[in-house]
Amino acid sequence: MTAIEIIRKKRDGVALAPEEIKFIVNNFTSGKIPDYQFAAFLMAVYLKGMTKGETSALTNTMLYSGKVIDLSSIPGFKVDKHSTGGVGDKTSLILAPLVALAGLNVPMISGRALGHTGGTLDKLESIPGFNVNLNLTQYKSVIKKHGCVMIGQTPDIAPADKVIYALRDVTSTVESIPLITASIMSKKLAEGIDGLVLDVKTGSGAFMKKYEDAKALADSMFNTAVSFNKKVAVLITSMNQPLGTHIGNLLEVKESVEVLSGADVPDLNYVTFMLAGAMLYLGGKAGSIEEGAEMIKNLTGKRAVEKFAAMVKAQGGDPNYITDLRNHPKAKYRVEVKAGESGYIKAIDTFSIGIASNSLGAGRLTKEDKVDPLAGIVFYPKIGDYVTSGQVIAVLHTNNKKSIKSAEETVLSSFSFSTKKQKKDKLLVEVIQ
Amino acid sequence: MTAIEIIRKKRDGVALAPEEIKFIVNNFTSGKIPDYQFAAFLMAVYLKGMTKGETSALTNTMLYSGKVIDLSSIPGFKVDKHSTGGVGDKTSLILAPLVALAGLNVPMISGRALGHTGGTLDKLESIPGFNVNLNLTQYKSVIKKHGCVMIGQTPDIAPADKVIYALRDVTSTVESIPLITASIMSKKLAEGIDGLVLDVKTGSGAFMKKYEDAKALADSMFNTAVSFNKKVAVLITSMNQPLGTHIGNLLEVKESVEVLSGADVPDLNYVTFMLAGAMLYLGGKAGSIEEGAEMIKNLTGKRAVEKFAAMVKAQGGDPNYITDLRNHPKAKYRVEVKAGESGYIKAIDTFSIGIASNSLGAGRLTKEDKVDPLAGIVFYPKIGDYVTSGQVIAVLHTNNKKSIKSAEETVLSSFSFSTKKQKKDKLLVEVIQ
Repeated sequence: MTAIEIIRKKRDGVALAPEEIKFIVNNFTSGKIPDYQFAAFLMAVYLKGMTKGETSALTNTMLYSGKVIDLSSIPGFKVDKHSTGGVGDKTSLILAPLVALAGLNVPMISGRALGHTGGTLDKLESIPGFNVNLNLTQYKSVIKKHGCVMIGQTPDIAPADKVIYALRDVTSTVESIPLITASIMSKKLAEGIDGLVLDVKTGSGAFMKKYEDAKALADSMFNTAVSFNKKVAVLITSMNQPLGTHIGNLLEVKESVEVLSGADVPDLNYVTFMLAGAMLYLGGKAGSIEEGAEMIKNLTGKRAVEKFAAMVKAQGGDPNYITDLRNHPKAKYRVEVKAGESGYIKAIDTFSIGIASNSLGAGRLTKEDKVDPLAGIVFYPKIGDYVTSGQVIAVLHTNNKKSIKSAEETVLSSFSFSTKKQKKDKLLVEVIQ
Repeated sequence: MTAIEIIRKKRDGVALAPEEIKFIVNNFTSGKIPDYQFAAFLMAVYLKGMTKGETSALTNTMLYSGKVIDLSSIPGFKVDKHSTGGVGDKTSLILAPLVALAGLNVPMISGRALGHTGGTLDKLESIPGFNVNLNLTQYKSVIKKHGCVMIGQTPDIAPADKVIYALRDVTSTVESIPLITASIMSKKLAEGIDGLVLDVKTGSGAFMKKYEDAKALADSMFNTAVSFNKKVAVLITSMNQPLGTHIGNLLEVKESVEVLSGADVPDLNYVTFMLAGAMLYLGGKAGSIEEGAEMIKNLTGKRAVEKFAAMVKAQGGDPNYITDLRNHPKAKYRVEVKAGESGYIKAIDTFSIGIASNSLGAGRLTKEDKVDPLAGIVFYPKIGDYVTSGQVIAVLHTNNKKSIKSAEETVLSSFSFSTKKQKKDKLLVEVIQ
């Protein structure tokens, strides 16, 4: 077995044996196979694809490049939710405490904002003191006590993914279904979960803009989870508009707490409750996703906020940021954006909204950038709404005055208007279970 | 312009602009673009191909990575012949002096044996003293005086090809039509030629075994030559059996001199004279390839041998090796191989014959191996011949006793026999002009 032979096979569209995948991945991550050979391999995988079996074997190799957490000492079903990322997507912060309240364990290992999307870790770190870098003992202790925990990737979780991703990033091999599948699933399977709900976003603010791509990724992740004997459900959901009204780190914590308290933010609540409902369904607490969603809805209120506050406290964060939103500081500049024309909203370039929010300070352009916890956009309109010229459609929050003008222009130009009534966006596109 | 963008474009099947190709190639060869990015680019080119325009731009960038020799001070048409390589292919040694005798200039920059094929430089170096490493002043001086010259690639000819080939070799991206085209043509166009005859081999002993692949390469090289305003003709010729009867370095010099003297080796003479005829046709000395071939045939004899001897002498070689073949030393072991069965020869695994010859010492398995000038195989049978069990079909020449048994087995197992009469192999498959 040599790297050259394995590259040639993949180049020629031949399915690789598990031991061949193991050979090239492990020898690359250990430095025995040079990066130029692995780069050629990645491009061959990108262009020739991988079978279900190959994707599963790649996931397996990446998973066992590190530690697989054992949560068997903690009683009960362990279930996580993973989203492929979007704008205003704060569902994790809402559903984790609710699903924990419903009696399941929610061990979450999350990521950071990158590109136009936000990241759960950055949102949590907008709460003073919140520590996303728990060690595994602390991780187990928090979940045992509170039923939910949210940390960042530790260096011993799927370390192969880190080196492979770094090479994909500079060789234009990121957007590959099997490579994305193995990257996500190797990290999720390391969490010690019994079940996984996947939220695959599609639309103008998603990484997979086209339905066909989202569906292919959804199927691939579903099949991989099944091959590891995990309970799994995939919801393909719309990212044609920001989810909820708040975009930005502390702004999203605020909206999450509001929903936990019982506020009705229609699109956000629907998607979050359906995802949480699927978690209850996988964990045997509900007979269907819809029934689970109804149960989750009924759990909102004071207890839900207290559950979130308890987890925040257990991870070193200030619980007063959760129990009383009046404690939240505000960005120095808060600028209203007013519609320049009237009409029905036909489409929203959600990718641009994400970029505008980042440019105000909410995200990062490079991995090294600092995130401003207070920056972001409160963005009101939804597809199908009628907007009148001069109406406030968004409020920009930033501490960087220079960024305002360009963000305002981006927000204004992100709309397509119509004089005719428009249908609302369909939030739940498809369920795979 | 960034490497990542260019890789992405090629990955997505978008044709690159000449300046994009120039950017990625020049920055790779200068070390500014890392090899892992160029490796991903090479795999994308392998799998997505290149248009005529892209192939031409790649050739141009590689050509101008080095020196382009100016032969304009030498009067007359300059024409070279390039073969994609085969077993027993010694046509260069024969046609160069003959075409020079016909009044054209033949500046040849050749390669070495690699894989199962022989190399012109190794053949020439079997003549004691022959120097293939002339500098460009010496190169010009020999061609001016003798009308032909044969040297190896100098470091200042298309240096980009050397680094790109080294990376292709370890990333399974060798067998790509545009990459092969640019590699060959960038070196040939640097010679200072006005015209080029290409001999693209197809069959069991060729690199392009299938006609379709040979044809694609032939078309690609033809189009590239045209885009550089060169006169060009491509002959697709058969490599389903060794060309002539002698395989090995000094053995092939011997057979070449015999043909120059006037000996009739049907397949070798036909292919050589047609290639040389095409050179005369391109150079305006003949009205057609066939007419040129007839002229070449009539030039064989004493003067042709003397022309070759003069070139050999001008390059430091012993002319007595050319003028009197009795001066050739012989390998220590000369072992007859006798047919084990009777029948008509249906097919010959020419690749295996090449490997057997190499294992006797005529070729090299790695670039560092030394070649034995005396080793090789005299191989008599041709497709369609009737062979009787016990008949001598080959003589193995070697100084390495250990290699004999395995080479004998390989030669014997390289035949497919039939009880029925078989057609002779068609030597000239197609002409593109």
